[in-house]
Amino acid sequence: MSRAPDTWILTADCPSVLGTVDAVTRFLFEQGCYVTEHHSFDDRLSGRFFIRVEFRQPEGFDEQSFRAGLAERGEGFGMIFELTPPHHRPKVVIMVSKADHCLNDLLYRQRIGQLSMDVAAVVSNHPDLKPLADWHGIPYYHFPLDPNDKPSQERQVWQVIEESGAELVILARYMQVLSPELCRKLDGKAINIHHSLLPGFKGAKPYHQAYNKGVKLVGATAHYINNDLDEGPIIAQGVEAVDHSHYPEDLIAKGRDIEGLTLARAVGYHIERRVFLNANRTVVL
Amino acid sequence: MSRAPDTWILTADCPSVLGTVDAVTRFLFEQGCYVTEHHSFDDRLSGRFFIRVEFRQPEGFDEQSFRAGLAERGEGFGMIFELTPPHHRPKVVIMVSKADHCLNDLLYRQRIGQLSMDVAAVVSNHPDLKPLADWHGIPYYHFPLDPNDKPSQERQVWQVIEESGAELVILARYMQVLSPELCRKLDGKAINIHHSLLPGFKGAKPYHQAYNKGVKLVGATAHYINNDLDEGPIIAQGVEAVDHSHYPEDLIAKGRDIEGLTLARAVGYHIERRVFLNANRTVVL
Amino acid sequence: MSRAPDTWILTADCPSVLGTVDAVTRFLFEQGCYVTEHHSFDDRLSGRFFIRVEFRQPEGFDEQSFRAGLAERGEGFGMIFELTPPHHRPKVVIMVSKADHCLNDLLYRQRIGQLSMDVAAVVSNHPDLKPLADWHGIPYYHFPLDPNDKPSQERQVWQVIEESGAELVILARYMQVLSPELCRKLDGKAINIHHSLLPGFKGAKPYHQAYNKGVKLVGATAHYINNDLDEGPIIAQGVEAVDHSHYPEDLIAKGRDIEGLTLARAVGYHIERRVFLNANRTVVL
Amino acid sequence: MSRAPDTWILTADCPSVLGTVDAVTRFLFEQGCYVTEHHSFDDRLSGRFFIRVEFRQPEGFDEQSFRAGLAERGEGFGMIFELTPPHHRPKVVIMVSKADHCLNDLLYRQRIGQLSMDVAAVVSNHPDLKPLADWHGIPYYHFPLDPNDKPSQERQVWQVIEESGAELVILARYMQVLSPELCRKLDGKAINIHHSLLPGFKGAKPYHQAYNKGVKLVGATAHYINNDLDEGPIIAQGVEAVDHSHYPEDLIAKGRDIEGLTLARAVGYHIERRVFLNANRTVVL
Repeated sequence: MSRAPDTWILTADCPSVLGTVDAVTRFLFEQGCYVTEHHSFDDRLSGRFFIRVEFRQPEGFDEQSFRAGLAERGEGFGMIFELTPPHHRPKVVIMVSKADHCLNDLLYRQRIGQLSMDVAAVVSNHPDLKPLADWHGIPYYHFPLDPNDKPSQERQVWQVIEESGAELVILARYMQVLSPELCRKLDGKAINIHHSLLPGFKGAKPYHQAYNKGVKLVGATAHYINNDLDEGPIIAQGVEAVDHSHYPEDLIAKGRDIEGLTLARAVGYHIERRVFLNANRTVVL
Repeated sequence: MSRAPDTWILTADCPSVLGTVDAVTRFLFEQGCYVTEHHSFDDRLSGRFFIRVEFRQPEGFDEQSFRAGLAERGEGFGMIFELTPPHHRPKVVIMVSKADHCLNDLLYRQRIGQLSMDVAAVVSNHPDLKPLADWHGIPYYHFPLDPNDKPSQERQVWQVIEESGAELVILARYMQVLSPELCRKLDGKAINIHHSLLPGFKGAKPYHQAYNKGVKLVGATAHYINNDLDEGPIIAQGVEAVDHSHYPEDLIAKGRDIEGLTLARAVGYHIERRVFLNANRTVVL
Repeated sequence: MSRAPDTWILTADCPSVLGTVDAVTRFLFEQGCYVTEHHSFDDRLSGRFFIRVEFRQPEGFDEQSFRAGLAERGEGFGMIFELTPPHHRPKVVIMVSKADHCLNDLLYRQRIGQLSMDVAAVVSNHPDLKPLADWHGIPYYHFPLDPNDKPSQERQVWQVIEESGAELVILARYMQVLSPELCRKLDGKAINIHHSLLPGFKGAKPYHQAYNKGVKLVGATAHYINNDLDEGPIIAQGVEAVDHSHYPEDLIAKGRDIEGLTLARAVGYHIERRVFLNANRTVVL
Repeated sequence: MSRAPDTWILTADCPSVLGTVDAVTRFLFEQGCYVTEHHSFDDRLSGRFFIRVEFRQPEGFDEQSFRAGLAERGEGFGMIFELTPPHHRPKVVIMVSKADHCLNDLLYRQRIGQLSMDVAAVVSNHPDLKPLADWHGIPYYHFPLDPNDKPSQERQVWQVIEESGAELVILARYMQVLSPELCRKLDGKAINIHHSLLPGFKGAKPYHQAYNKGVKLVGATAHYINNDLDEGPIIAQGVEAVDHSHYPEDLIAKGRDIEGLTLARAVGYHIERRVFLNANRTVVL
């Protein structure tokens, strides 16, 4: 799981057809690439092929010609590939409101190296979490929401995302509904943590809904956003047992741990290039 | 958890008011009853008090006068109590269709003594599981469903339940919608296993629904039935992790283990008098 | 689980004998105390009785006379009791070395109110975690270890503990063996997190030991310390699945989450007065 | 996970070297084999490569020439491979003593098709479980143990194993120490369920040991046997939470569920050719 420092990650997907695996592995062999982990999956229901390979950089490796060669090889298969260099750390923007448990967790994991990412900015509609971002030395943008002019706030948010060069946006309990337009821009590039086991309790106050139903388990769902904020492809879900003695505020407290862990797990999968979109589902290799 | 062989169980509930705990414990003390476990819970949202006590039978114990005395003591509190003798084994009727994993599990646990119940009958709309019941020496009633006359089949079912003296009916994947009338008769006396984490995927083919949503967890819910078959108070829920490689049939296989374990857990709680109805929720002490 | 703001906690234990439950509940009733949760357990193997009660403060409540009355009532039973006022926040000293994941987690939970305690000081043999303590506004004492004179460092540590009035010491990955003398002073008052499922891998480098054994689960154990640092009564244990792809450094990373969660759970139980010593075991009510 | 009915499984392992993956995938491609799942892992600590591939049978497939070609291709790599046809059901012998929970579980899963194996015989040193085997139509061999002549009983056991053509022996709570000689014969071919989380509580009465230590988790370990019965490479481990109210007999009851599930999981992995020996560890792909 941990990798030697010269390890590249290659991921690709394309329609299912004979020869996909061979096309990738043969190319890697011809380039002298030593494969340390290879996982591929051919989904017989969706008819799509997914592959993720970790390989050690060979001597005299030239990224440009490697990419060119691979593109040529994959062309006939309609293969979309992604190549991640050893020391790549994706730039990330984290969006928050007032709750800090997910932000605290993400920044902690980034600081100790468990999440190999660079948090370029924290963006919020509230000023509350600025001290936390400050302590980690990360720029904090407070863009208050004008209920009569939401679009202008979203433009500010989008500008930060764009200028930061972020590959990933993390909605770490942002608590605002994004406009369809912004959702579209973030399609497949933003991970949201939903404070419920989807599709169990969509909508407002899921822990109160759960309390009223008397559930014995509460959970959280990390998913990509698409045009419907609470409906994108699920990456990870977490769950914990509760009982009758948990009042709604206890469920919320319990939920914090699950939300933090589940979001961190999903972000880790994304950063390690383990997640593939497969229509409205994900493949996690 | 395991009990000395002379242990009685006393359970009671009533509206919240000062003095409820004392009323029960003082009475037990006056009767010379040695308390080995006592758990009470006062729900500040529903305003209801619940208590479960295990006690050793004192010398010269007289059940009738004990009951009479307790009734008197609890009267002012509106207390409803239940007293379970040491060797009580509730009579149970199990209803099944064709799937045998829950029945197999329940009969096995009864046979080894993990579930202290007497299965008086297995009732089914199909003949398939007769050999399994036969092997355990349990009467099997096959009542086929006539789509044009469901009520007459339900009358047969009900007759078996009544004549057996069953305190509990277990719907171990019965797969049929019961009539509102039968649901009413079984209110709080029948446990159903729903092959999904409610309220996630109600309705038909929950595992296919779960597959289509790309969930990363599947679960099962054991609950009392009330007038709405899939909506009664939840007793226990179980869950297990799945991934993209689980096709619908794999989710179903995975589900079997969770269903069996979750149903057995709920039945165990019921038999040990741990479950209290609290409006549309349960308290499990 | 969450409590009304005027809730007291009463805990007690004594040798098993008829009348223990009644003695406590009758006294509470006579004092007009409204009981919201009551849990008692009589251990038939160790012959000891344990009780934990939450009650609402009645009008005109006088703590001194309440304590005096309770002491009198419990005297014949050899009852040791503890009474915790509604707004009590125990003072706590946290001891650390260089690893910060447990400290980060504890300070975070204290800050958001999930752990109702006042961290009076962080004590360490290294300076590394000072910035983290500073940010939370907590005094940090750096007492380096002189290998030729460990006792003098321990005296410094003990002085901080004593002067702070701490009821609880948390060894949040302190990584040093305490002297038998200090262990004795901290007996039952200090919680340690052992980075392994005891008694599986005691001693140094438990994750490397686990790797070499090819285990499929790693865990952590939170326990009171007694004269043997790694052997005191267990309060909580946590576990997570691993596989062949987890190298030792991956097990360590995985372990961090379990250690943090397990330690926080144990500290929470202690603070809520749920933990009783029962010879070399604990009862958690 | 579930497979199309014409799916073959190819597994192989060899020392780590450039070209291993390519050797296998290129050969499969040249043979026209459609790969549906491919997982390979190169262990950088042990320096060994492991691969598991599922592929659909191409038209005109000839097993003999396929095997010959593959052997040739793998020769330079020192590759040991195994090829499993679509409808292969390994023959299995199950050894038991008196406890039936694991046997019940295995036979049930075999009957419903969740474990694709043929149980050729159940062998025991006690007659107790004969009715259970009978009901499933499986020959039951009762070989009582003469304490003065254990070798002759082991010879009887071995004869059944040999004559049945079993590829796998399952020690489903056999409770007898096997002789070093029999252990050697079964090396890597027999799965044992140890009723404890190894290396936690080896030796007799692990649940009583666990009770005395006051653990909050109990578990079970499924592993291959080698010359040391309780020490072979671990395949799967399971765990469940317990508390102070679990007396030793309750831990044993709790343990039954974990043992059954963990053993079934390990057997499933073995049957699906997911388990590779890697010195004293396993790789499960």
